Amino acid sequence: MEKIESLQNGRVKNWKKLATKKGREQSGTYLLDGWHLVKEAMAAQATVKTVMGTAAAWREYGDLMPRDLNALEISPEIAKTISDTVTPQGIFAEVAVPEAATALPDVVHGAWLFLDAVQDPGNIGTMVRTADAAGFAGVVFGRGTADQFAPKVVRAMQGSQFHIQLVTEDLYAALRYFKRSGLAVYGTKLDPTAVNFREVQSGADFGLIMGNEGNGMADQLGTLTKANLYIPILGQAESLNVAVAAGVLMFQLKQE
Amino acid sequence: MEKIESLQNGRVKNWKKLATKKGREQSGTYLLDGWHLVKEAMAAQATVKTVMGTAAAWREYGDLMPRDLNALEISPEIAKTISDTVTPQGIFAEVAVPEAATALPDVVHGAWLFLDAVQDPGNIGTMVRTADAAGFAGVVFGRGTADQFAPKVVRAMQGSQFHIQLVTEDLYAALRYFKRSGLAVYGTKLDPTAVNFREVQSGADFGLIMGNEGNGMADQLGTLTKANLYIPILGQAESLNVAVAAGVLMFQLKQE
Repeated sequence: MEKIESLQNGRVKNWKKLATKKGREQSGTYLLDGWHLVKEAMAAQATVKTVMGTAAAWREYGDLMPRDLNALEISPEIAKTISDTVTPQGIFAEVAVPEAATALPDVVHGAWLFLDAVQDPGNIGTMVRTADAAGFAGVVFGRGTADQFAPKVVRAMQGSQFHIQLVTEDLYAALRYFKRSGLAVYGTKLDPTAVNFREVQSGADFGLIMGNEGNGMADQLGTLTKANLYIPILGQAESLNVAVAAGVLMFQLKQE
Repeated sequence: MEKIESLQNGRVKNWKKLATKKGREQSGTYLLDGWHLVKEAMAAQATVKTVMGTAAAWREYGDLMPRDLNALEISPEIAKTISDTVTPQGIFAEVAVPEAATALPDVVHGAWLFLDAVQDPGNIGTMVRTADAAGFAGVVFGRGTADQFAPKVVRAMQGSQFHIQLVTEDLYAALRYFKRSGLAVYGTKLDPTAVNFREVQSGADFGLIMGNEGNGMADQLGTLTKANLYIPILGQAESLNVAVAAGVLMFQLKQE
């Protein structure tokens, strides 16, 4: 197996660039960090360009991988350099950004989460993971929402990008599209005059919009929804973390 | 107002030490970073030792604060040094760690969250904030759970430490104590043979145990609960983020 030891190697520099949106757009790939994600990518038959591992990682995981990989050995220093974590497992994959990531399917089915200008990559990734767990079909990333394949988003998704559809789309366009498909879209508001989330019968196919951490969903989006939902706050906290609120709503609306 | 400009000033060094558990134990205080938290501390009449602000922060917030504060002006460089955030607002308070943080009340009422070896400070703080929002009475921090007043915990709590009780206690002792008080305690398991969380009638007073991110709740704790709950996973995700799972469970169990 080919070994890379120098931090100055061109491929190492390219892997580091995958931490930026520009780098991912230039290469059409993003980085998976850790065995769980590498395993998920292979199970999902994602387009794996290269698998990079330290000698220790290849000893541990090599037998669990297919034979026809484009495999490279990297030094522990390189592993530290390209990882977003403090103590990387030492196993990585460079995988293709799926083309489907840019468009809604022709016919929309199932439950979908809409993200309106959500900022925190950990929140975004956690919401994708939760949407997967709750049986949602996909997540629509609206304008101003952090990139799907930023390292902290990828880490928090825990591989759910291989299970459900991730789409980048203007939310107003997506909302019209859902309406034409006969699907209700619900907004969310931190406003007790909105509809209590426990009083909605959404059925299995619908959209649910979560908004920005500080400002919530855009007011204009809220005028176009079937209803806007709120979660009653019983204590003195002013609000919920957006990923927690999304979890409470998704598991309430989608029950089957 | 007294000004501090040197990063070498003894007080600056002490504020930096508050980022560590040892530093907080030595001083009996912890640090609040940002106007929202400083405001919450004053509203809750917490023991505020000192309020530190940059000149810009005093111009913005000075009129909103009581006159009898122990107030200091700090340089923007000092603000950056003592802050856990990249772009601090420039307003801080050093407040006393409450003594009540170490013991359960004599008579336990309400709903309580138990944290069993939860590791991530963001998860912990988010769970405290969610417990507050869901109308819980308090949170019991068990052994192996990160410290209540670590900077990232404080940031994620968003001031909820001033609204509900935070207690550090051995969870086995707490569980016996709750049982003697006639309160049911529910565990959580990632196991479809456990009880579906939607099928439990907990009433308003109970305990709910959330476990470690990787390993879940300790098996031995699970043998001592009234029931162990699970959240059905409808998709392919292996699990939920612990703070999301806690939110889903808390808002399901505590409805009134």
